[in-house]
Amino acid sequence: MKLTGKNYIAGTISSEGKTTFKGVNPSDASELPTTFYEATIEEVNEAATKAHEAFAIYRKKSGKEKALFLDAIADEILNLGDTLIERCSAETGLPAGRMISERARTMGQLQLFATVLREGSWVDARIDTAIPDRQPLPKQDIRYMQKPLGAVGVFGSSNFPLAFSVAGGDSASALASGCPIVVKGHPSHPGTSELVAMAINKAAEKTNMPKGVFSMVHGASVEVGMAIVMHPHIKAIGFTGSTRGGMAIFNAANTREEPIPVYSEMGSTNPVFILPEALKERSEDIAKGLTNSVVLGTGQFCTNPGLVFLNKDENVAAFQKQTVKHFESVDAAAMLNKGIKSAFDNGIEYLVKNKDSVTLIAKGKTSSEGFKGSAHLFETTAKSFIENHFLEEENFGPSTISIIADSKEELLAAAKKMKGHLTATLFGTENDLKNNTDLIEILEQKVGRLIVNDYPTGVEV
Amino acid sequence: MKLTGKNYIAGTISSEGKTTFKGVNPSDASELPTTFYEATIEEVNEAATKAHEAFAIYRKKSGKEKALFLDAIADEILNLGDTLIERCSAETGLPAGRMISERARTMGQLQLFATVLREGSWVDARIDTAIPDRQPLPKQDIRYMQKPLGAVGVFGSSNFPLAFSVAGGDSASALASGCPIVVKGHPSHPGTSELVAMAINKAAEKTNMPKGVFSMVHGASVEVGMAIVMHPHIKAIGFTGSTRGGMAIFNAANTREEPIPVYSEMGSTNPVFILPEALKERSEDIAKGLTNSVVLGTGQFCTNPGLVFLNKDENVAAFQKQTVKHFESVDAAAMLNKGIKSAFDNGIEYLVKNKDSVTLIAKGKTSSEGFKGSAHLFETTAKSFIENHFLEEENFGPSTISIIADSKEELLAAAKKMKGHLTATLFGTENDLKNNTDLIEILEQKVGRLIVNDYPTGVEV
Repeated sequence: MKLTGKNYIAGTISSEGKTTFKGVNPSDASELPTTFYEATIEEVNEAATKAHEAFAIYRKKSGKEKALFLDAIADEILNLGDTLIERCSAETGLPAGRMISERARTMGQLQLFATVLREGSWVDARIDTAIPDRQPLPKQDIRYMQKPLGAVGVFGSSNFPLAFSVAGGDSASALASGCPIVVKGHPSHPGTSELVAMAINKAAEKTNMPKGVFSMVHGASVEVGMAIVMHPHIKAIGFTGSTRGGMAIFNAANTREEPIPVYSEMGSTNPVFILPEALKERSEDIAKGLTNSVVLGTGQFCTNPGLVFLNKDENVAAFQKQTVKHFESVDAAAMLNKGIKSAFDNGIEYLVKNKDSVTLIAKGKTSSEGFKGSAHLFETTAKSFIENHFLEEENFGPSTISIIADSKEELLAAAKKMKGHLTATLFGTENDLKNNTDLIEILEQKVGRLIVNDYPTGVEV
Repeated sequence: MKLTGKNYIAGTISSEGKTTFKGVNPSDASELPTTFYEATIEEVNEAATKAHEAFAIYRKKSGKEKALFLDAIADEILNLGDTLIERCSAETGLPAGRMISERARTMGQLQLFATVLREGSWVDARIDTAIPDRQPLPKQDIRYMQKPLGAVGVFGSSNFPLAFSVAGGDSASALASGCPIVVKGHPSHPGTSELVAMAINKAAEKTNMPKGVFSMVHGASVEVGMAIVMHPHIKAIGFTGSTRGGMAIFNAANTREEPIPVYSEMGSTNPVFILPEALKERSEDIAKGLTNSVVLGTGQFCTNPGLVFLNKDENVAAFQKQTVKHFESVDAAAMLNKGIKSAFDNGIEYLVKNKDSVTLIAKGKTSSEGFKGSAHLFETTAKSFIENHFLEEENFGPSTISIIADSKEELLAAAKKMKGHLTATLFGTENDLKNNTDLIEILEQKVGRLIVNDYPTGVEV
């Protein structure tokens, strides 16, 4: 299991390019062993072409055969043992415990798709038999089922180096549906990516899959990713990451001669609404839970609660005081990489500078070690939120903005003004929820998941 | 039921604009009574805003209530009686018989969606109950169901003035799912559009729907359509028409601050493959049936067979001779409007000029009356088809190109080179189909419907 730093192209390793980079430990900014080779355009072309060729074979594999493949990937990931956990932890600054549970989740995703494949009804097969004597025209026999599109380009995220990366959810679903994959490994965890690539290759070999069913290319630059998106043999994209990156891919995919679907999970600020009775009854509890949710994984979750709405009443001040206390006690913790850390710091600086629109009310402990980031709590009014669009932008990391509305009307206006988010969360008693059906109706139109009395970072995918 | 020529905006009629146009009878190019008013940007804004407001009410209507509305639309369309059939026939040049069967189809679509609403399972409701003692984390209770997006912009087509127009399939599905609609009436049949708009308004009133649930604006210019696509209150688009129009809308929708989905059915050339045994056994039959399919509705079907592939063998010459004979006996017939007729003529002229790539082998009867178009049959080789991309472009109207392959390999190469189409058709015996699984596998990746031993113009939607 020695890392080579090379690209994995249809079962062979390749390093044609001259551009190299290294993994970095964000806890102390030290370089990790192994030099990684960015893929060349020719290598991407080779991967896409081999994926296309493999598709002719792979699409005919039965559900049972593909299930064996997915289960084997899960097994081989487990077989990587502590080597995977240690490298992954070193590359991301995330603790080993988190890596172990994320590995379990990743295996669970692969095994879930294997179960779905064995069950088989996902193809939605329909046979609509003929009615030869139908008037005024006979009805034909019509048969329908889901079919794989072809090779899929997968872009993993930095913040889930296993569950949303080389063998993550997008890869599992593409492989399950019969589509070979060309993965762009995230440069933030290249060693982890290579280890998982080894596991997939082993699984493919053991279960007799065509070699082109899987390729993984490295690339810290935009060119490698764009070469995948624009390749005529790539028929769909799965992306998890920033809004900026995702929109660039979406826009590029739409300019292709044959536009292709881009399934992307991008940035989100995940508004939380703490309703009056819940605030009164569970103030201390929510202040603590919310702080934990904001700083979980150093705030690097796409479901991180970045906006917390409160109705101004006699309980708000006490709640804010408790939350401030919790934020101030949070230790600085490693962020995933230098780029994310500096983007986060810039975002904080921008908010701090905009004193007229928003106020910093708490800051966690600081550290100058590695790429460690500190928790930040801001406060503003609903009026200011409505006027200042930038307050709704995601600042990826351990920070959130409390938004205090003078009235229910103001709260609804703020909710109406919001754009789309992955989740919205409501803390409320039965009574609160009954009194806020208008708010719920607005949120239903804005978000994919509406969470009641739980934290968005724990949302079930 | 007197036509007003005005725009129908949330239950009121409006004619703020200065730009007007008239319906034209394509059989003799005569202007029809009633002057129509193009909508202004303000009128489009009013329609979209009213649709958005109506959404708050309409989305809460039960399946049963929406079913009553859809059934009432079907009833009111029938109540328009001969007035509708006559105006529609006059505006399109399509015979009354076709209009009557298209009316039945349109009503059938509305009634089908009403049935689906009453049955109710389309919302795909799932309740995934909690598992509080799951390890390592408790599982939350998760509930899922389909929800309407909001107001939908609908662009009807010229060639199905009822079934794919104001109360066509896109309108029926949007209304069924709980989305108000803003329809851009096709300028090729403005009187038909107004009559159907009257029917929808009556149905909305009878079944107590909010007025903003339906608006229909006229517009011969691009501006009216783009104002709908770009309006922030419009959350999805349904489009049926040309590739050029559809792609312009798709591209515009993607440049919005909030990009929206565009569900479009655009141009297609619908390749037909006549396999050797079928050609031998049913030559005369297929020559006749194919000609009928090419000239049905003066060739103005999105499923019109525009490419006919043949393997060179001893039966091809006889088949071509029969097909030529059939094409030459076809009467000239009215095309939908001046623009479509002149685009068709230009397309024919372009092919005729490109003598090196393709040869005109038969022409139907001609007429200088109105916008009448003549049937055209071209012939070329698979080699030429592979080299000349323009041969795959749709020429909307009664024409087709026979493509003769020297070998099976050439046929497969031509199929591989093809882009996507709505349908592909195979004529073949059991034996033919067994011998052509390679061809079928290629076509499966290219088209939405694979038709066996029937004509694409009869495909069930």
